[in-house]
Amino acid sequence: MRTNGREANERRPMSLTVNINKYAEGSVYIEVGDTKVMCTATVEEKVPMFMKGQGKGWITAEYSMLPRATQSRNQREAARGKLSGRTMEIQRLIGRSLRSVVDLHALGERSITIDCDVLQADGGTRTTSITGAFIAMAIAMNKIVQKHSLPVFPITDYLASVSVGIVGQEVLLDLNYEEDSRAKVDMNVVMTGQGQFVEVQGTGEEHPFSRSQLDQMLAVAEKGIQEMIAQQREALGPIALKIPNGDAGANV
Amino acid sequence: MRTNGREANERRPMSLTVNINKYAEGSVYIEVGDTKVMCTATVEEKVPMFMKGQGKGWITAEYSMLPRATQSRNQREAARGKLSGRTMEIQRLIGRSLRSVVDLHALGERSITIDCDVLQADGGTRTTSITGAFIAMAIAMNKIVQKHSLPVFPITDYLASVSVGIVGQEVLLDLNYEEDSRAKVDMNVVMTGQGQFVEVQGTGEEHPFSRSQLDQMLAVAEKGIQEMIAQQREALGPIALKIPNGDAGANV
Amino acid sequence: MRTNGREANERRPMSLTVNINKYAEGSVYIEVGDTKVMCTATVEEKVPMFMKGQGKGWITAEYSMLPRATQSRNQREAARGKLSGRTMEIQRLIGRSLRSVVDLHALGERSITIDCDVLQADGGTRTTSITGAFIAMAIAMNKIVQKHSLPVFPITDYLASVSVGIVGQEVLLDLNYEEDSRAKVDMNVVMTGQGQFVEVQGTGEEHPFSRSQLDQMLAVAEKGIQEMIAQQREALGPIALKIPNGDAGANV
Amino acid sequence: MRTNGREANERRPMSLTVNINKYAEGSVYIEVGDTKVMCTATVEEKVPMFMKGQGKGWITAEYSMLPRATQSRNQREAARGKLSGRTMEIQRLIGRSLRSVVDLHALGERSITIDCDVLQADGGTRTTSITGAFIAMAIAMNKIVQKHSLPVFPITDYLASVSVGIVGQEVLLDLNYEEDSRAKVDMNVVMTGQGQFVEVQGTGEEHPFSRSQLDQMLAVAEKGIQEMIAQQREALGPIALKIPNGDAGANV
Amino acid sequence: MRTNGREANERRPMSLTVNINKYAEGSVYIEVGDTKVMCTATVEEKVPMFMKGQGKGWITAEYSMLPRATQSRNQREAARGKLSGRTMEIQRLIGRSLRSVVDLHALGERSITIDCDVLQADGGTRTTSITGAFIAMAIAMNKIVQKHSLPVFPITDYLASVSVGIVGQEVLLDLNYEEDSRAKVDMNVVMTGQGQFVEVQGTGEEHPFSRSQLDQMLAVAEKGIQEMIAQQREALGPIALKIPNGDAGANV
Amino acid sequence: MRTNGREANERRPMSLTVNINKYAEGSVYIEVGDTKVMCTATVEEKVPMFMKGQGKGWITAEYSMLPRATQSRNQREAARGKLSGRTMEIQRLIGRSLRSVVDLHALGERSITIDCDVLQADGGTRTTSITGAFIAMAIAMNKIVQKHSLPVFPITDYLASVSVGIVGQEVLLDLNYEEDSRAKVDMNVVMTGQGQFVEVQGTGEEHPFSRSQLDQMLAVAEKGIQEMIAQQREALGPIALKIPNGDAGANV
Repeated sequence: MRTNGREANERRPMSLTVNINKYAEGSVYIEVGDTKVMCTATVEEKVPMFMKGQGKGWITAEYSMLPRATQSRNQREAARGKLSGRTMEIQRLIGRSLRSVVDLHALGERSITIDCDVLQADGGTRTTSITGAFIAMAIAMNKIVQKHSLPVFPITDYLASVSVGIVGQEVLLDLNYEEDSRAKVDMNVVMTGQGQFVEVQGTGEEHPFSRSQLDQMLAVAEKGIQEMIAQQREALGPIALKIPNGDAGANV
Repeated sequence: MRTNGREANERRPMSLTVNINKYAEGSVYIEVGDTKVMCTATVEEKVPMFMKGQGKGWITAEYSMLPRATQSRNQREAARGKLSGRTMEIQRLIGRSLRSVVDLHALGERSITIDCDVLQADGGTRTTSITGAFIAMAIAMNKIVQKHSLPVFPITDYLASVSVGIVGQEVLLDLNYEEDSRAKVDMNVVMTGQGQFVEVQGTGEEHPFSRSQLDQMLAVAEKGIQEMIAQQREALGPIALKIPNGDAGANV
Repeated sequence: MRTNGREANERRPMSLTVNINKYAEGSVYIEVGDTKVMCTATVEEKVPMFMKGQGKGWITAEYSMLPRATQSRNQREAARGKLSGRTMEIQRLIGRSLRSVVDLHALGERSITIDCDVLQADGGTRTTSITGAFIAMAIAMNKIVQKHSLPVFPITDYLASVSVGIVGQEVLLDLNYEEDSRAKVDMNVVMTGQGQFVEVQGTGEEHPFSRSQLDQMLAVAEKGIQEMIAQQREALGPIALKIPNGDAGANV
Repeated sequence: MRTNGREANERRPMSLTVNINKYAEGSVYIEVGDTKVMCTATVEEKVPMFMKGQGKGWITAEYSMLPRATQSRNQREAARGKLSGRTMEIQRLIGRSLRSVVDLHALGERSITIDCDVLQADGGTRTTSITGAFIAMAIAMNKIVQKHSLPVFPITDYLASVSVGIVGQEVLLDLNYEEDSRAKVDMNVVMTGQGQFVEVQGTGEEHPFSRSQLDQMLAVAEKGIQEMIAQQREALGPIALKIPNGDAGANV
Repeated sequence: MRTNGREANERRPMSLTVNINKYAEGSVYIEVGDTKVMCTATVEEKVPMFMKGQGKGWITAEYSMLPRATQSRNQREAARGKLSGRTMEIQRLIGRSLRSVVDLHALGERSITIDCDVLQADGGTRTTSITGAFIAMAIAMNKIVQKHSLPVFPITDYLASVSVGIVGQEVLLDLNYEEDSRAKVDMNVVMTGQGQFVEVQGTGEEHPFSRSQLDQMLAVAEKGIQEMIAQQREALGPIALKIPNGDAGANV
Repeated sequence: MRTNGREANERRPMSLTVNINKYAEGSVYIEVGDTKVMCTATVEEKVPMFMKGQGKGWITAEYSMLPRATQSRNQREAARGKLSGRTMEIQRLIGRSLRSVVDLHALGERSITIDCDVLQADGGTRTTSITGAFIAMAIAMNKIVQKHSLPVFPITDYLASVSVGIVGQEVLLDLNYEEDSRAKVDMNVVMTGQGQFVEVQGTGEEHPFSRSQLDQMLAVAEKGIQEMIAQQREALGPIALKIPNGDAGANV
């Protein structure tokens, strides 16, 4: 039996509050169970050095946890003087995932930086960050489109992410921290509204997993992600209509 | 005329929401106008190396801003690999101020780390952090006292802080960012419930200030701080009663 | 048509030269096409701080490229003063993968550090590192077993890794650098001799991928990995016999 | 009774030796009791990035202690790889103080860097650095004015600094290290020749202080600073005449 | 009696394999006894900032050891976040030595970076690196000359290096690690084909040495270096003929 | 003709002022021409980790230049966050040289750290540092011997250092900065009172040098060093008598 009486394929409640930051071009406060993340999107009218002169834009992400987001306090990376491997891995994952649903040429030579700051962590911080980051990015993108009268809305599909794992013999959706600690296999899936995979990262450090287990996990993850995308659409309101394929995605 | 029609000696509205973090021994979310800070207090049953074997406790603080707390995004200190001078100066100020109202011997060989994370900044982030940090510390202290049945509540007085400055020819209380940018003189004052000074930091980089201006600023700051301490007392509820001198302080 | 006339599901030639380092407890020089990696395994009779007192061992890995392993020279991470996110991600992947086939209790409180140094890179450096690291680890493990007369050989299965991707519309096995640059989807698979998955990391940054494409990639990767494990068995000689499940793995 | 039989409001002897560095545009060796600081001023015909194009100059300061400036050797910050919070706080204080008496527009787009290196420390290193830095800056400024025939001497007033504190119940001027260690309250004051405040930094970490104590400390500090400014004027010789308000200041 | 029955003035066997790297403009794999170093030369059509606009080229070197090049594993400098003093000293020595036999004006505004990576260490890694670096540089230089039709081959003489030391009372040539550990005096000599000194670095930390001992060491070193230069000439094949003074050097 | 009419084999005037630091166990202020260095020796009753339990002491050195020791200001290494290769090379040289004349067993398990801080630089800062460091060390050693009633004075000989170089065709002793810039060959020699070599570091980056030139340089350096040792003996006063071989050295 799962905490709060959840079914194996049932997500935790998710809430989305948009525009919570006074300065950022896009922002959202996302809660998935007790995991709480603030996502802001910052627009800059320039691209990094390595992208210059290509007529394309860039999307990048940064991720951090407040020291007391976790059960015992973790030292600030700023105090240690460097980012951990885990942080960099997550930042790369978020940025890569977001770019997969953006038409960088349509964006033009500007960049969006998404900051995902975990205020409280209870499992699934990276997947929650991706789901929230998409919303912050979409709101910021809408500002760019309006300000510069871009002919095309540069987002090509919805994007959300969820974790799935094997605890005992059972495949569980959206693990909280306590479940994650007991999981033999842990998988993060990032999908589009059309039901295409953007990232599949499964790890069986404690216990290798079979092909059939992999199949079950992917199915459960897809269910969860499409539910999340439906919530994203609601939260975005009128902006949701500008994102192509979103409806199709819901039906996959 | 000030933003929002404030009087020269009128603070911005302050709101305090205690216990907003699931894991921390003490926590508060504090808003002063559009400045928003999350403060958590972490208790550890040990002291830093340099304090060992003295039978005394230790209080320390860390301060950080989210990248998009400000009008334009500021680079993470973790990404730059080091803390700025400003951050370290503020951290030292917060820790020093808190220690001034704690009986470190009564606390015993344990330490409290206060994390002040600025979610949104609109002037006065260091003073707001001190005011919030005091509450998070008091809640955590209460947990320690109960858990270890300490005979004495180790906090000796209330503590709050406000900024005051000279804009044009006028002394203004609790400057927001826009006022701070125009201020000729900027002063941060930290005071106890009894009306004693803990820190007085006045800077006239743009314009040196006279003794009479200093006197006016101190008077206005005292008014603001005593109002804040009244709000702290409310927010702390029953814990407030354990803090000596608090009542006296309100009458000074 | 692929470089060197390879079939879509054909690996590049792989060669393994064991014991190439005079000092290391285990070592191998591995070439996969033009990708050349030196792997050494170092045994220490202690475990990291966080593992102490659990009666278990630890396996960790470090990964690095020589500056001129690549087409244009890349700056040393030692000169830049920090490891890149990519390096840390790869190090974590190698260590995690190796641990999945080690009985850490049987190993006892000792640790093995695998160094994977890429002398020349032509795609697949992380998968080649894993395949080589397993051999270096197995040789070092054999030394430990003999020296301490351990009752059980602490390796529970074979382990190898290969990349697979989608270039144009075709699923290709074991991409070289040029193919990797053109790939829409890139996937790294780590598997055991028994055909269980240890890591599945698929990324469609340029182009999300469908479930059916995922299935094809996994099938091709499995074929490649089982061929590699057969070569590992040969290279290990008599040590190969001590690794359980290895024969079964070849037949999955 | 104070060390060396000093009165409560009596400074330690101060000596100033100008032009002790062969290369620097301005330099002074300053001793205040056993505190010994070498100050050099370096002129550059450019300003930092953030000041470019404003037609204004910039003044900045760096501060450091030799490892054996103190009773027990302190590790070099260069060896630790970063500046301490204390060092950065002092550097910011010195720079800010100096800028308060400079007409940055009159200086034009050039910058002066003041290096304050403490050869031996016995309390008051930051205040001694400020008092010395002013002299090094004034000498360098004179070189700039002559070289570029500037119409205005860009220094608007004298500047010096002293510490004051409460030891036992007594307000003492210019604390040495031993007194500073016993002080309940510690205050650094930076003032101009006209008797205006530039910085007031009072800290009662050990013991909050009352308004009346604050008043006494400010009065004693002012006395000390005006005496120091008289010595600065002598040391500067003919250059002293170019600094406006200096005479007035002595009479405040 | 020396390891392997070597005479006091006998070098260890040296082998040179050129062009072992697919990408580098010049490369060599050099073995001197059990010391094994990979040297690559990278050409860039630009010079460092401090050399710009002088019409001259630049040669620089980097040196590193793989973690398990040594008996016990040494931590990566990339992991520690900084280069050791030893590494920087060696890098400076190699670069300086190479530049002594290059006509930087003839090279033009381009730079060559030599990477010396020690795969296995058994004494003499810095001297072996210099001897190998010269070959990698000469091959790369030949590519530059051909590509740009330079009128002059910019290398002015051969260059090789060997260590010599005093073990017990005896002067020994080309110390291995075990001999080096017992040496009272240790000297590295870098010489040209003409028998001129480029670097003489003798250290008697354990035991100061006399003038007569210095003379003996220099004589033995010269013998060893001229033998090495003969091998370099062979390894370089036709390129050897383009290096002036090389023949003369052999006869000095 | 040399600056100040010096002969080719004539040193610059050297002055030594001992005990200039209030806290250090040994200290000296040394001027060689316009090169000015402050050397302090700090005694600690412990040795570094790697020396523990051997019953031996340790001598180490640190070297730094003030930012404006040089013609144009150089950035602080503390601000850059790391020591330059040059600094580390010099620190290693000073420490190694001092250890060559110390009986580490007689010193016992304690360590001496010599800090050499260059206040002004005009060539020869490393040789001047060594010459001064010896004096600071000898004074500190005397304190140790007296405090612990050591039976043997642990210094076995005098030690001093000078630079020598080839400018034009001439061998010059003790080069100042301007001569050093024009030198084709630059050599630093460290010698004992007995005339034994401790370090010989000759570099012909601009121009390789012949054996006969090497011989001339060594002869001139020896002359200079023995003169310096005579001055060291005077400066040390009664302590000089405790250093064996010193008289002999003067006659070599």
